[in-house]
Amino acid sequence: MASEDVKLIGAVMSPFVMRPRVSLNLKGVEYEFLEETFGSKSELLLKSNPVYKKIPVLIHSGKPICESLIIVQYIDETWSGHSILPSDAYDRAIARFWAHYIDDKWFPALASIARAQTEEAKNEAIEQVFTGLKLLEEACEKCSGGKPFFGGETIGYVDIALGCYLGWLRATEKLIGITFLDETKTPLLCHWAEKFSSHEAVASVMPETDKLVEFAKMIQAKFKAPANK
Amino acid sequence: MASEDVKLIGAVMSPFVMRPRVSLNLKGVEYEFLEETFGSKSELLLKSNPVYKKIPVLIHSGKPICESLIIVQYIDETWSGHSILPSDAYDRAIARFWAHYIDDKWFPALASIARAQTEEAKNEAIEQVFTGLKLLEEACEKCSGGKPFFGGETIGYVDIALGCYLGWLRATEKLIGITFLDETKTPLLCHWAEKFSSHEAVASVMPETDKLVEFAKMIQAKFKAPANK
Repeated sequence: MASEDVKLIGAVMSPFVMRPRVSLNLKGVEYEFLEETFGSKSELLLKSNPVYKKIPVLIHSGKPICESLIIVQYIDETWSGHSILPSDAYDRAIARFWAHYIDDKWFPALASIARAQTEEAKNEAIEQVFTGLKLLEEACEKCSGGKPFFGGETIGYVDIALGCYLGWLRATEKLIGITFLDETKTPLLCHWAEKFSSHEAVASVMPETDKLVEFAKMIQAKFKAPANK
Repeated sequence: MASEDVKLIGAVMSPFVMRPRVSLNLKGVEYEFLEETFGSKSELLLKSNPVYKKIPVLIHSGKPICESLIIVQYIDETWSGHSILPSDAYDRAIARFWAHYIDDKWFPALASIARAQTEEAKNEAIEQVFTGLKLLEEACEKCSGGKPFFGGETIGYVDIALGCYLGWLRATEKLIGITFLDETKTPLLCHWAEKFSSHEAVASVMPETDKLVEFAKMIQAKFKAPANK
């Protein structure tokens, strides 16, 4: 596709930023990646997302779009080619439901493991992540219809919503010494994770697990610092 | 529109249930309203929304759809006639952004006023509601283009997202003795609230403020009960 005026404000480590990157790759849209520095916010970011002041922001022909899943839908509706949302209204509602669940319940549980102040809170969060994966295993079976992705033969909305957290899932596994994606408990998700991560639209923008682990340790140190004072 | 197999599991007092009710009214779709009893959950609800176990659930030809804003989008994509989402992809992204903001930030602040345990927390929540209304006043100006609704001449996605909280906004005003929607601070929203509430698709499903106040007092008493033990 010819180069257009498409810019993405983001950061390599962010799962939320990875979502529009994968979507643009799937559509074959070239874009300029404007990387934010951790701990500071550029003038352009503050101007483009004055409400949340958060990445990612997609800027298409000068017009900003915020919130990762809203950006993914915008990309799907704006550029033809690879379809991200299902074509059927009911399937679309189901895909939106799981993407919502992933952001509303599942990822917050995963993110809270590193921040847990007690062993009890940590174990509760781990349990919630496992419960969520069980639900997502069942959703994968229903949505994929025996095909490799939630979206069927190709990567779709739920694949992007969940898949962009895979790096952080693996980093958390390394950090706490637990295997979340297990062949016996969630075989479909195990297979799916492999297919998703190695897909050409994904592989180049998936952050390395070791770098995420380092990054997580740095954030953890920041979080814990005030308590040590 | 001819009667179809459309059921809605809900409750009259719920702003989330009001969203699909207004949407179905706008589309002229007849539906069976299956009212849940406060404090208990029907078998049908548990079966239809096993993940969240929450109302509303729309059941269309036996197939359940959950989460109020996902249901509104489903209704818009399934039945023709009145358009709820804007036709332009960028305008759609902006509408989705504000609907997200309303659910993610603004309503949680409003809801937290009644639950605040300290005067400081209560005042902070009140301040957040005012800040949000200021943002929404600006959004209303931009989205409506001088017309009565966020959606322009007719009720759209943001109107439904925000408007279905109007009953609870008024109930909170009565409960704490503060005027949130003020002619001098947010003139556009004041005018909009009047137009929205009196619209034929809305008026019959907007709960009475006094009943919401009673209901809120009952919930408050429940919330406070354990602390008194």
